[in-house]
Amino acid sequence: MSDDIYHTRMQAALEEARCAALRDEVPIGAVLVHRESGEIKARAGNRTIELCDPTAHAEIQVIRTVCLAVQAQRLPEYDLYVSLEPCPMCAAAISFARIETVYFGAADPKSGGLTSSVNLYSHAPLHHKPKIVSGLLEEECAQILREFFKAKR
Amino acid sequence: MSDDIYHTRMQAALEEARCAALRDEVPIGAVLVHRESGEIKARAGNRTIELCDPTAHAEIQVIRTVCLAVQAQRLPEYDLYVSLEPCPMCAAAISFARIETVYFGAADPKSGGLTSSVNLYSHAPLHHKPKIVSGLLEEECAQILREFFKAKR
Repeated sequence: MSDDIYHTRMQAALEEARCAALRDEVPIGAVLVHRESGEIKARAGNRTIELCDPTAHAEIQVIRTVCLAVQAQRLPEYDLYVSLEPCPMCAAAISFARIETVYFGAADPKSGGLTSSVNLYSHAPLHHKPKIVSGLLEEECAQILREFFKAKR
Repeated sequence: MSDDIYHTRMQAALEEARCAALRDEVPIGAVLVHRESGEIKARAGNRTIELCDPTAHAEIQVIRTVCLAVQAQRLPEYDLYVSLEPCPMCAAAISFARIETVYFGAADPKSGGLTSSVNLYSHAPLHHKPKIVSGLLEEECAQILREFFKAKR
C-alpha cells in the first residue's frame, strides 16, 4: 500500500483528536481499520470527562464499538491507528483484543505503554503482542497535544 | 477495623467470581467500597464473553459503574477489593480512577500487573500509585480459579 492510505487513516484519527479538543478532552483520536476491506469501522476521540469514565480513552472506545458490532471480543482482522502512543491500560486492551498492528503518531515518553518506560509488549507475558509502527504523522499528532496543553497553562 | 470487615468485602468479590464461573467467564470478582461509609457501592464479575468486550474485567466494570453513579472519573474515596491481582490494563485504570487502596486475593505471577513481572506502580510514571494489600482470602480466591481451569481441561 502507498503511504497515502496510512496517512489518510491517521488523518481520520487526528480529526477525532481535534473534535476531542473542542470538547475540552485531551486531544487523542483513534480509528480501527478492517484490514482486508481497508474500511474504517470505528473512530473516536477521548471522552473520559464527558462519559465520566476514566477508561474512555480513544483506543478503548473503538475496540468496544467494533467488538460489540461483530459480537466478538477478539479482532485479529483489524489494525488500530492512534494519534498518541497508547498508555499501559490501552496497550493491554489492544493485546486482549488481538489487534494485529498498532500504528501510532507521537510517542509518549512520559506515560506511553509501548516504547517508553513501560514497554508492555516486551516485558509482560501477554498472549498476543501486536506489531508496532510508530511515527506516522508524528509532528501533526504531537502539535495538537502541545497546542492543547499550552492553551491550558 | 477488624479483619472481619475486609473478609466480608472479599467474600462479596468471591461471590461475584462464583457467579462469573456459572456464566462460563473466568471467575474473578470485584467490589468497590466507599471508605467512609463502609458500603459496597458496586460489585461485578468478569463479563468479557457476555458483553463481547475484552475490557469488561470485574475491576473495570465496578469503576465504570461508580464513576457514572457519582458523575466523576476519579474515586479517591473508594477502595477496591478483587479476587485476583489486577492485570496491567486494570492496574492502570485503577490508578487513573485514583482509588486509594487495592486489596487483592490471589497473586497472578503470570499476568498480574502489580506484584508480578509487570510492577506497574513501581516502574510506570503514573500520577497516582494506589496502596496494595495482597493475600486477602488468598486460598479461596485461588481455588475458584484452579477449579474453573481444571474443569476446562
